[in-house]
Amino acid sequence: MSEVICAISTPPGMGAIAVIRLSGEGSVALVDSIFQAASGKKLESLPSHTVHFGRISDGEELLDEVLVTLFRGSRSFTGEESVEISCHGSIYIQQRLMELLITQGARMAEAGEFTRRAFRNGRFDLSQAEAVADLIASSSRASHRVAMNQMRGGFARKLAELRDKLLQFVSLIELELDFSEEDVEFANREKLYELTNEIEQEIQTLADSFRLGNAIKSGIPVAIIGETNVGKSTLLNLLLNEEKAIVSDVHGTTRDVIEDTMNIGGVMFRFIDTAGIRQTVDAIETMGIARTFRKIEQASIVLWMIDMTTPRAQIEGLATSILPTLKDKQVILLFNKVDLIPDEQRADFANLLPALNADRLFISAKRQQNTDQLQEILVKAAAIPSIGEDDVIVTNLRHYESLNSALNAVRRVKEGLETGITHDFLSQDIRECMFYLGEITGQISTEEILGNIFSRFCIGK
Amino acid sequence: MSEVICAISTPPGMGAIAVIRLSGEGSVALVDSIFQAASGKKLESLPSHTVHFGRISDGEELLDEVLVTLFRGSRSFTGEESVEISCHGSIYIQQRLMELLITQGARMAEAGEFTRRAFRNGRFDLSQAEAVADLIASSSRASHRVAMNQMRGGFARKLAELRDKLLQFVSLIELELDFSEEDVEFANREKLYELTNEIEQEIQTLADSFRLGNAIKSGIPVAIIGETNVGKSTLLNLLLNEEKAIVSDVHGTTRDVIEDTMNIGGVMFRFIDTAGIRQTVDAIETMGIARTFRKIEQASIVLWMIDMTTPRAQIEGLATSILPTLKDKQVILLFNKVDLIPDEQRADFANLLPALNADRLFISAKRQQNTDQLQEILVKAAAIPSIGEDDVIVTNLRHYESLNSALNAVRRVKEGLETGITHDFLSQDIRECMFYLGEITGQISTEEILGNIFSRFCIGK
Repeated sequence: MSEVICAISTPPGMGAIAVIRLSGEGSVALVDSIFQAASGKKLESLPSHTVHFGRISDGEELLDEVLVTLFRGSRSFTGEESVEISCHGSIYIQQRLMELLITQGARMAEAGEFTRRAFRNGRFDLSQAEAVADLIASSSRASHRVAMNQMRGGFARKLAELRDKLLQFVSLIELELDFSEEDVEFANREKLYELTNEIEQEIQTLADSFRLGNAIKSGIPVAIIGETNVGKSTLLNLLLNEEKAIVSDVHGTTRDVIEDTMNIGGVMFRFIDTAGIRQTVDAIETMGIARTFRKIEQASIVLWMIDMTTPRAQIEGLATSILPTLKDKQVILLFNKVDLIPDEQRADFANLLPALNADRLFISAKRQQNTDQLQEILVKAAAIPSIGEDDVIVTNLRHYESLNSALNAVRRVKEGLETGITHDFLSQDIRECMFYLGEITGQISTEEILGNIFSRFCIGK
Repeated sequence: MSEVICAISTPPGMGAIAVIRLSGEGSVALVDSIFQAASGKKLESLPSHTVHFGRISDGEELLDEVLVTLFRGSRSFTGEESVEISCHGSIYIQQRLMELLITQGARMAEAGEFTRRAFRNGRFDLSQAEAVADLIASSSRASHRVAMNQMRGGFARKLAELRDKLLQFVSLIELELDFSEEDVEFANREKLYELTNEIEQEIQTLADSFRLGNAIKSGIPVAIIGETNVGKSTLLNLLLNEEKAIVSDVHGTTRDVIEDTMNIGGVMFRFIDTAGIRQTVDAIETMGIARTFRKIEQASIVLWMIDMTTPRAQIEGLATSILPTLKDKQVILLFNKVDLIPDEQRADFANLLPALNADRLFISAKRQQNTDQLQEILVKAAAIPSIGEDDVIVTNLRHYESLNSALNAVRRVKEGLETGITHDFLSQDIRECMFYLGEITGQISTEEILGNIFSRFCIGK
């Protein structure tokens, strides 16, 4: 029997309504002790998945008129008896209700504890549980899709199947150990080799997807470089504000949430601001320029802004140091302040840096000229493939690390099969591979791993 | 038939879950078109007050796994068919679901539109509707209690009864107009006079409660005065942070919400910071000191902080200008930095300003010495009476203004009865009194008044 836990599950702050969630055996009885249904009935007598209007009082004091939703038996998110209280969204009321529930014997839930209970009660595997947090944090079409796919479970199911097959083999090999004097082979080495090949490919594909997955989850890294006065911040503000406006229309979200990432055309970009390069042009080895170079290195896309009103000789001087760093990057040359330059001069700029393989665009950040086109080019440069319902993409560093460990182990198994190592070493390598696969699916989990995973959830989930 | 409206009803931002609410004929059919219940059933076929798990898709794209709650017929908050969608609290998902609902024909709800519909559908009167907003904004035991009492409706019901009685009399008096040549009196003047007396008293009591009500709702105004270095901000931060910590434990609310009000011992205080007085001491008529005086005037409580390490001669010089402003105020003399002064010197300070009727307290704001005692003294000085379940307290400026207008009108009626004015003037004054009473209860309401009231609600309520 598990303790009754409770938490405010809706976002923090004031709103029209807030939802407080309870889970654990005794949740219904606990709420019954403070709730008077308008119908006069006790919640204990009412069926699952029904909603009831009534009042919650703290002794004589009426605290709120609320809706109470019942989830009986195991028919809930957590797989245990649960109650949701939908109250008026006053911070004071939320706080008083929480205090009252705790006085009545509930315990404040830890971060992610509802999902952890759902995992413990077999409602889903560990990678699905982790996807719940990703889904809540998702802020673009791609990150939403990837989290949704993972929550629906294709990914871990496949790994669990492969792991089960390995288990059969390792059992047979360990049986051989018992008969080691008789030199029998219960496990078909050829089929085992086939299986390891299949596992290697499967894991490799998943591990390879991490680069894309990480970009989707954290945002495609875009470095904006250029001199200090070329209009970088005007452009950044322009893009960020547009995004902010879209978000604010519906939610009134704060600047904090957006930070310096932005969703453009369904793709999340993470903009990396760099120090202007002008100051350090004559002392190329200074810290400043080195830092800018490191930032360019982290980026997939480099936005190089050039002020069309400044002499291009200077830019070309700079180019010699910058150009080598731009290999393997998607580069966009942004010629800014186009409104200040006669049209006939544009051609001169288009021919600038001919050796550089880059998109070239004339814009005016200030007058918002061609900024739509910039967004299109960014989305194209991000090259996020469209993700189908069944595409599995690894976004989680923990999974990526376990996959790499599993990959090493499965390669040792293959090697061992090729060189014909002894039963015991072979079985040990297989067990290790199984361990890392199990870490991902949660078939193997320690308190520490679980604590680590669920502490990153928000309270109330 | 009313349009289907929709809004995110939970606080803005990311959380474990968010709730989107729809109301209006066709809400259920609208959600049916995008929702696939896990049971395979259509929502249209399912009973009111039940909850259903399933998926919401935008065409082929799975958007989220959600819980849908049905409110059929008039058994909802708004008094019309309603649906609540409880989704994962990702900002992206909330936004996509809203977009999808709007594509399907719902309209984004205006601020307070759900409550406005509830009012229109006779679920409660206007003062109750307004109490919903107050309840959501309530941030102390007293403001919560006052809003809850008002939401339960004692206040407007009484006024509506009185208004109905007036209506009977005015009908009779207007009937007399038709028979004016015959000089009959259908309306018993004595009973009418009794009624106007009763109404006058009732309104007077309500209007008188506004001073308390406003203090409860906006916070008891406390001016903190003193020189610049006496420790005012240390004290303020100390008090504000303690409050912030309490709130943050549960919600992680932001500084913005608290501003410079704080809840101490269940009472909301509004602290009014004043400019230090030192700079303007030799030019008493300057703007600065005048502003401080105006702030003292607004306050119910004045916290006068005195740095015990600075010469008191200076303070006494200041006192001559300040003392006259402190009449009718609760004054607390706070001797700060007590830790820097030997105990035996305290007595000197206790005798300072002997003419001033004030609580005196030695504290160290920095070392948090005696600050608990300060809180106790503040709560005592606030003198908020304990509010019973049936106590009616006006907190709303609109009500206060209507009450004052009604009071003037009813006094004219009384006067008219005393001086025996003609039927038509009498009936006009009664009608006017009825008008203002009706404004409070919502029996009389214009689009403008309603628009004004509900625009102050949050979206989703």
